[in-house]
Amino acid sequence: MSKSRSRVNSSQYRGKYKSIPDPFPVHKLKRVDRPTTRIKDYEVQRVSELDGGFQRANRGEFGSVIQKEYDRFVEKHPLSDSLLDMSKILASAVDGPIRTEKAPLLDDPHLLSNHVKEVAYFLRADLVGICELPPYAVFTHDRWKNEPIELKHKYAIGILIDQDWKTARAFNGSDWISNSMSFLGYSTSGFIACILANYIRKLGFPARAHHATNYQVVVPPILLWAGLGEMSRIGDTVLNPFLGPRFKAAIVTTDLPLAIDKPIDFGLQDFCQKCKKCAEYCPTQALSYGNKVWHNGYEKWPVDIARCTKNRVGNHKGSGCGTCIKVCPWNKPNTRIHNFVGWTMRKIPFARRFAAWGDEVLGYSKPKSKWKWWFDLEDVDGTLTIPKYTSKKLKKYKRRQTKKNKDE
Amino acid sequence: MSKSRSRVNSSQYRGKYKSIPDPFPVHKLKRVDRPTTRIKDYEVQRVSELDGGFQRANRGEFGSVIQKEYDRFVEKHPLSDSLLDMSKILASAVDGPIRTEKAPLLDDPHLLSNHVKEVAYFLRADLVGICELPPYAVFTHDRWKNEPIELKHKYAIGILIDQDWKTARAFNGSDWISNSMSFLGYSTSGFIACILANYIRKLGFPARAHHATNYQVVVPPILLWAGLGEMSRIGDTVLNPFLGPRFKAAIVTTDLPLAIDKPIDFGLQDFCQKCKKCAEYCPTQALSYGNKVWHNGYEKWPVDIARCTKNRVGNHKGSGCGTCIKVCPWNKPNTRIHNFVGWTMRKIPFARRFAAWGDEVLGYSKPKSKWKWWFDLEDVDGTLTIPKYTSKKLKKYKRRQTKKNKDE
Repeated sequence: MSKSRSRVNSSQYRGKYKSIPDPFPVHKLKRVDRPTTRIKDYEVQRVSELDGGFQRANRGEFGSVIQKEYDRFVEKHPLSDSLLDMSKILASAVDGPIRTEKAPLLDDPHLLSNHVKEVAYFLRADLVGICELPPYAVFTHDRWKNEPIELKHKYAIGILIDQDWKTARAFNGSDWISNSMSFLGYSTSGFIACILANYIRKLGFPARAHHATNYQVVVPPILLWAGLGEMSRIGDTVLNPFLGPRFKAAIVTTDLPLAIDKPIDFGLQDFCQKCKKCAEYCPTQALSYGNKVWHNGYEKWPVDIARCTKNRVGNHKGSGCGTCIKVCPWNKPNTRIHNFVGWTMRKIPFARRFAAWGDEVLGYSKPKSKWKWWFDLEDVDGTLTIPKYTSKKLKKYKRRQTKKNKDE
Repeated sequence: MSKSRSRVNSSQYRGKYKSIPDPFPVHKLKRVDRPTTRIKDYEVQRVSELDGGFQRANRGEFGSVIQKEYDRFVEKHPLSDSLLDMSKILASAVDGPIRTEKAPLLDDPHLLSNHVKEVAYFLRADLVGICELPPYAVFTHDRWKNEPIELKHKYAIGILIDQDWKTARAFNGSDWISNSMSFLGYSTSGFIACILANYIRKLGFPARAHHATNYQVVVPPILLWAGLGEMSRIGDTVLNPFLGPRFKAAIVTTDLPLAIDKPIDFGLQDFCQKCKKCAEYCPTQALSYGNKVWHNGYEKWPVDIARCTKNRVGNHKGSGCGTCIKVCPWNKPNTRIHNFVGWTMRKIPFARRFAAWGDEVLGYSKPKSKWKWWFDLEDVDGTLTIPKYTSKKLKKYKRRQTKKNKDE
């Protein structure tokens, strides 16, 4: 270690190890060596981004109606359309030149990890976690040019952005604001990831941002390894103990030498085994009521991708769908009472039995219509119209639909 | 009013008038008809963006050293450099095509104002206010091409972003993180303003975002009229009752018919008359210890633009300067105790006498070094180096400097 480096340590970073950068009490979570989802690391096959549900919809695998709808399902509401535009602007900001000479930083991965988190929180991230980039989390091909992806970065930084509690409480799960909530998370986390990756490159280390309009990585396994959540019954969706499933993530991959976080265990595998609210409320019954199954090296609850995608893309009663996010008992605000309930759910297996029931009794699955602030609008051939299905009608529709599902 | 419009009203926006979108209790502030700073509306001359201190530095009006430094004073720290890059990306996202046909919205300016605020808060703005765009708040010429600006929008929406309390508590006012704090505010408020303006254009109304790398308007008078703050002793700086001077703003101008907010009076004119901390701590003594003076139609505390700019651009002991922001007694976090103290300062003139003194006794003017999370780094000819002045040395330097100023 050079003399100048040790000078950096003593004069600049006093007390850094004692500080906890995270706004949520992540240091109180139980850490485990491996994700609570069983993964056969050497069996997981890398996938192409083109294998995803949305890309299959785009290719017409779910029929011509869905294929046509794919071109407008986000754009049909003016707010999600505007957020998507921003995501597209950020698509070109993921990578750039790296400073030739490295910055005089201390060779201390713990200090650098702490620093990276402090930067991300300064940039207004909600939660940050770091892991080694699992090789199977890199896509084989990108969706734009179908070109092979070679990404050899060693570390991945997960950045979570809340999709907004107030809106999640107000919406019915699949009405006109759903895609805006998704793209609020996508664009904001992408904005932060692009700045953070650029900063790391300016320090002299390779770094690339990955966000909704320009991914080279599969997000869920990164979030699992980075201790940002556990895999839930909502197919392929990672659930965070503080935000529930109400978030979207961007990733920064880098070779900056970092210390990694460990996966977390807050009892979700047991919880999701008992609670089946997401499966019950899913408008197209795409989620499983049953047990986990093995798929591509992961033991997880299965999801019917075709049903889920068809509903999100083809939903003519709204823009997108997040019903599973809406009704999940973990979708709660950051308040004392909810933090306490969250603590009991994490710590007391017995309490989990009552969570889904209590959540239902307290009416959290229903939209709180007095908090509704958005306009139900739909772009039809370039003209904004008041959609046929606005909230009141949707409620009636949903009641009929649920009844129908139960009868079947 | 068409039938379809009244349908929108009843089914979509129930209870909207009762809802308060703001996260801070802005509805409890005393509203007044005119800003507490006296403005002779018909005497205020429009200015060119080229008249600003930074542009004058760029032209060499403050000497060749400052002119040269202008090209690197933000870029010399890797984090502010990265944030500036993002601001530049957003420079082209301020305007775009407007939907030809207007959306079917209710002709209700109060409802639309409430909606605009809800959208901005959904996009994670910290504070939002609306006013009519004062004609004198439009620049005559832009700084990039020196082209005449014609901006006839009727309304202006001010969007504030906190520059981060934790960092403001940790920094010494003019060290290596100062420009990063500014550009955190600039880029994040710009990001939100670009999305909001795009959304309004998609509703069929003209709208343009204005942010650090692409302004057509002067920000302070807009903030005054939009009830987002009062003019402070910190020259030309508007101070918000909840964030103090610790924020940056972006603006959206539009013709969407909006209801306007009224200016606020929280006693700042009296407060700043008594408290002179910013003037005392200013490293280059650019702020006034005296009374307000008339300048270009405003009666305000004067600022020596040359001294202030020279220090921010030429500061070789850090990147930029925000000492006035640092030491202002209104620079406090959003906690119960500070909210209570803030309330007393707003309501009880007697309490204001003790604010500056109490603030000093409690040590808020000093950097809380254990919260320091950033790296002191300086780009010198493309290579990042550990700057000659890091925090410890800066403290000593400052003590000497303050003593020198007092002696003079």
